[in-house]
Amino acid sequence: MNAARRPARGERTSRPAVTALGGGHGLSASLSALRRVTDRLTAIVTVADDGGSSGRLRSEFDCLPPGDLRMALAALCEDDHAGRQWADVLQSRFTGSGPLGGHAVGNLLIAGLWQHLDDPVAGLDQVGELLRTRGRVLPMSLTPLTIAAEVIGLDPLRPDEVCTLSGQATVAKTRAEVQKIRLEPEDASACPDALEAIADSDFVVLGPGSWFTSVLPHLLVPELADAIVDSPARKVVALNMSSAGETDGFTPSRHIELLAEHAPRLRLDTVIADQSFADEHLDSYVRSLGAELVVADVAMRDGSARHDPLRLASVFADVMGC
Amino acid sequence: MNAARRPARGERTSRPAVTALGGGHGLSASLSALRRVTDRLTAIVTVADDGGSSGRLRSEFDCLPPGDLRMALAALCEDDHAGRQWADVLQSRFTGSGPLGGHAVGNLLIAGLWQHLDDPVAGLDQVGELLRTRGRVLPMSLTPLTIAAEVIGLDPLRPDEVCTLSGQATVAKTRAEVQKIRLEPEDASACPDALEAIADSDFVVLGPGSWFTSVLPHLLVPELADAIVDSPARKVVALNMSSAGETDGFTPSRHIELLAEHAPRLRLDTVIADQSFADEHLDSYVRSLGAELVVADVAMRDGSARHDPLRLASVFADVMGC
Repeated sequence: MNAARRPARGERTSRPAVTALGGGHGLSASLSALRRVTDRLTAIVTVADDGGSSGRLRSEFDCLPPGDLRMALAALCEDDHAGRQWADVLQSRFTGSGPLGGHAVGNLLIAGLWQHLDDPVAGLDQVGELLRTRGRVLPMSLTPLTIAAEVIGLDPLRPDEVCTLSGQATVAKTRAEVQKIRLEPEDASACPDALEAIADSDFVVLGPGSWFTSVLPHLLVPELADAIVDSPARKVVALNMSSAGETDGFTPSRHIELLAEHAPRLRLDTVIADQSFADEHLDSYVRSLGAELVVADVAMRDGSARHDPLRLASVFADVMGC
Repeated sequence: MNAARRPARGERTSRPAVTALGGGHGLSASLSALRRVTDRLTAIVTVADDGGSSGRLRSEFDCLPPGDLRMALAALCEDDHAGRQWADVLQSRFTGSGPLGGHAVGNLLIAGLWQHLDDPVAGLDQVGELLRTRGRVLPMSLTPLTIAAEVIGLDPLRPDEVCTLSGQATVAKTRAEVQKIRLEPEDASACPDALEAIADSDFVVLGPGSWFTSVLPHLLVPELADAIVDSPARKVVALNMSSAGETDGFTPSRHIELLAEHAPRLRLDTVIADQSFADEHLDSYVRSLGAELVVADVAMRDGSARHDPLRLASVFADVMGC
């Protein structure tokens, strides 16, 4: 199975090969849009989550955290009845506070497949077949990773002191200002199929998503960062709808700067920003990097700070010329 | 979905409609044979298990115990690659002694489907579609049941004292002699689809299996016993390969007697016994009940006391005239 790179006989091959990197709800948003643009789609997902159902499974079985992978699979699910029905089941969670309470059903199925098949990629491909996903979901690495963050302002009495926080769940909810992150181990190998997908892509998409815990980690696996930099693919960054959570108060330009600080060799081609988030400095900053800025209305109409999949799909289609 | 009663257009309808009742490994054996004889097949499964993975789920969610249902689904799985692969995954168990250790992956998926769909039969049908089962698997009742057994010999110092043991796991492993069982609640309703399948069957098959905990319970749900007795279907009993476990030392005739003691109105048409278990009294006893005895070589060639699916299928095909 390799939906992203080996179109079946008779399939339209004019659609671009796209690889989207991220994690959590941000990656779900880009995938929900991109699956409407192309069927040659690969999602590459962070594997540093240590909270909730994923954290419990990781601690019980020393496996990859399945949660973000499950969400990405659900986002790539076709809108047919069977696929949708299974996606809803796998996204649902056990109730109560017993040994299974809070576990997503899909996390347990993925963990079971991993144990039975002893091959994380084969397990995800099998769930992809069940959900009839449009594209493929891969982990960034076959090794469970840990995020460590340098923060300031953790102790209000010593606002300039630099401290280190460890673990994605801790980093994601800290009120301190994150300045830099790193992964442990620092030299983890990337998933080989992920490297191949990036090399063969027409477009590589980073973001939206929690900038420190879902987007930047991809640039910190050395093989993955090299593959992104060296790929002939055009590099597209989709900014968040606003600065919130881990990057509360950060300007859009600061989001871009963080990419450069974590991967100095990275050159961007396109930055997509919602009209509500783009500020007056962003355009000149993006142009100074040799990239183009696309400002568009991609907001949901429900008042939330989420991307509307169809509006975002329309922007991706314009950027990708399809 | 109703594989047992509504053959699709163009399907061969000359095959008999068969309902097999039981639980555990015994029901797996009859289903593995019967799916080779007909595609109009319904399995009706005991829901009194309170041990192992099923017992833990039942206690956490007050749901039906899924284990025997999962095993029946796996036994009905078609031999194609996808169905077989999923069946193997769902039969596999989590390792270790953590919160998930020992749980069958399929039990968790079934419990998740039940919680999400809030309909036990719809959940089992959905797993049946995943495994591409040849036929349908139904619980005997939509209420989790408890087995209570009257036993003698529990206390070696008082060998004639009658005691009551409660719970399938306890009854299945007692060394005391079981004399009679009952279900709690005594008046549980049967699964409506199970009643319909029995009424519409050409053959109803009881056994093989643990006689007290997998076979007899079907005769103790009043609606189910009435449906079996009142169905125009021919009643076929498949005896075990030997007397062991719960019925250690019981003659084949005593196995048949127990059916009559628990369901006096039941009339049998055919009794199937392996040549190694049939004794000199069985034939005359079975004939005195107005039934026919079929003695055959249905043993596995691996030295185990298990039925060979192909040999048993061949006997079922003879009995069912197909």
